[in-house]
Amino acid sequence: MKIVKTIEDLSQARKELQGSIGFVPTMGALHNGHLSLMQQSIAENEHTIVSVFVNPTQFLAGEDFSTYPQRTQADIKICELAGVSILFMPTSEMMYAKMEPTILAPSAKAYILEGLARPGHFDGVLRVVLKLFHLTKPTRAYFGKKDAQQLYLLQNMVKSFFLDLEIIPCEIIREDDGLALSSRNAYLNPQERQKALLLCESLKVATHAIIAGERDIATLKAEMVHTLESLHVEYVEILNRDFDTIETIEIGNSIILVCAKVGTTRLIDNLWI
Amino acid sequence: MKIVKTIEDLSQARKELQGSIGFVPTMGALHNGHLSLMQQSIAENEHTIVSVFVNPTQFLAGEDFSTYPQRTQADIKICELAGVSILFMPTSEMMYAKMEPTILAPSAKAYILEGLARPGHFDGVLRVVLKLFHLTKPTRAYFGKKDAQQLYLLQNMVKSFFLDLEIIPCEIIREDDGLALSSRNAYLNPQERQKALLLCESLKVATHAIIAGERDIATLKAEMVHTLESLHVEYVEILNRDFDTIETIEIGNSIILVCAKVGTTRLIDNLWI
Repeated sequence: MKIVKTIEDLSQARKELQGSIGFVPTMGALHNGHLSLMQQSIAENEHTIVSVFVNPTQFLAGEDFSTYPQRTQADIKICELAGVSILFMPTSEMMYAKMEPTILAPSAKAYILEGLARPGHFDGVLRVVLKLFHLTKPTRAYFGKKDAQQLYLLQNMVKSFFLDLEIIPCEIIREDDGLALSSRNAYLNPQERQKALLLCESLKVATHAIIAGERDIATLKAEMVHTLESLHVEYVEILNRDFDTIETIEIGNSIILVCAKVGTTRLIDNLWI
Repeated sequence: MKIVKTIEDLSQARKELQGSIGFVPTMGALHNGHLSLMQQSIAENEHTIVSVFVNPTQFLAGEDFSTYPQRTQADIKICELAGVSILFMPTSEMMYAKMEPTILAPSAKAYILEGLARPGHFDGVLRVVLKLFHLTKPTRAYFGKKDAQQLYLLQNMVKSFFLDLEIIPCEIIREDDGLALSSRNAYLNPQERQKALLLCESLKVATHAIIAGERDIATLKAEMVHTLESLHVEYVEILNRDFDTIETIEIGNSIILVCAKVGTTRLIDNLWI
């Protein structure tokens, strides 16, 4: 595995790769969720490039940019053992110029849900991912369904900007008890860790109700809110896969989304049905 | 020459090309300025792709989008005779989705001069050119120095977005009497055509003063304004090649820019010294 730390070294290393390229962009603090993305990429491509970059432009003022978990040595080991070809670890100074164009994500879909709580977050995500795509020129890029809205907006960008690559949505990886993996789970103390299970519990409650025949969104959301009542719920939403509002469940085209604060930690989870 | 009118046909035709690709994006109504870009591209690359697309997002409300000169048959003939490999002629519906990310050009350089008179113009330019770059994947892209500010902003985008291509600045092509070629010259009546010569005349006045030893920007600008006094001057500016303000001429790193309205037609010209 080549570890490259500059744009020039990445470009050079990329040039030396032939055949299909899988790309897994991350912010490091790698967990089994990231590992599953890498494994899928490695299985489906001749080479896999992973980036570890805590992207400042997707954090808002007052968010956890400066304290975001960093585990460089562990990240390197995980990528190496997984069979990654190139690990790219740039600095902010390399990734951003003092003066450059910015990206505005489409507001109707980027300033709702996550984007309502974090206005501008997706602008920063699209901006850095576009740059990373230009640098790594992947055949396929792997993103977890956990960040469902991000995934949708990235697919929208790839399509409307005519990027010649395929976004591969990957399943959410969970702990045995159901908690969706997240680097931010590291912020939870044992008591909060237990309460955090309510997020996936609320998704199960909705799923069971749907299996039992319930199709009304308002009813399903009310049941979820009830399940989550001991947490500070930011949103509970059920949308179609284009992130449009729906009134009744469309099986095979719906996403149930939940966001709640557990202590000071903001957690998200979702289920595609 | 292949004439392709859809994204799919362009992608297919592009895949069939091997080797270096020169790209010349245009809004059609091709004149000798465009032809010189094509000729340079054809001389320097194995294949040349030309696009003809009157891009709606770079026009402001009330500008000449709907009346912009169109000469499709002549454009096709010019490209064919020049030796272009692919001529791409899409519609707005193909190039833009109902909901998509937008580009914001860096305001300090994109909302001055042309961008002051046409706020948002360069956002639209960067947006369409980025899309066209993704579609055509050029080795080199050719732009005239006449649109000096556009050229600067495109170079800035290519660098900061890590696009793997080279922007080639091409010399301004002029009529025998000095008028810089522009598709908008077609709007001028014979009397206006004569008055339009004052733009290049004002550049000559400044150049002669510089040759004679004048270095003070304010003095040079005053001489230009005097030359242009029978026109409605929008701006006269002398900047360095990063479009930063300077107080004295830096030989080899300055651009003299002029914009004036002749009748209802807004014309620009510039000289790199």
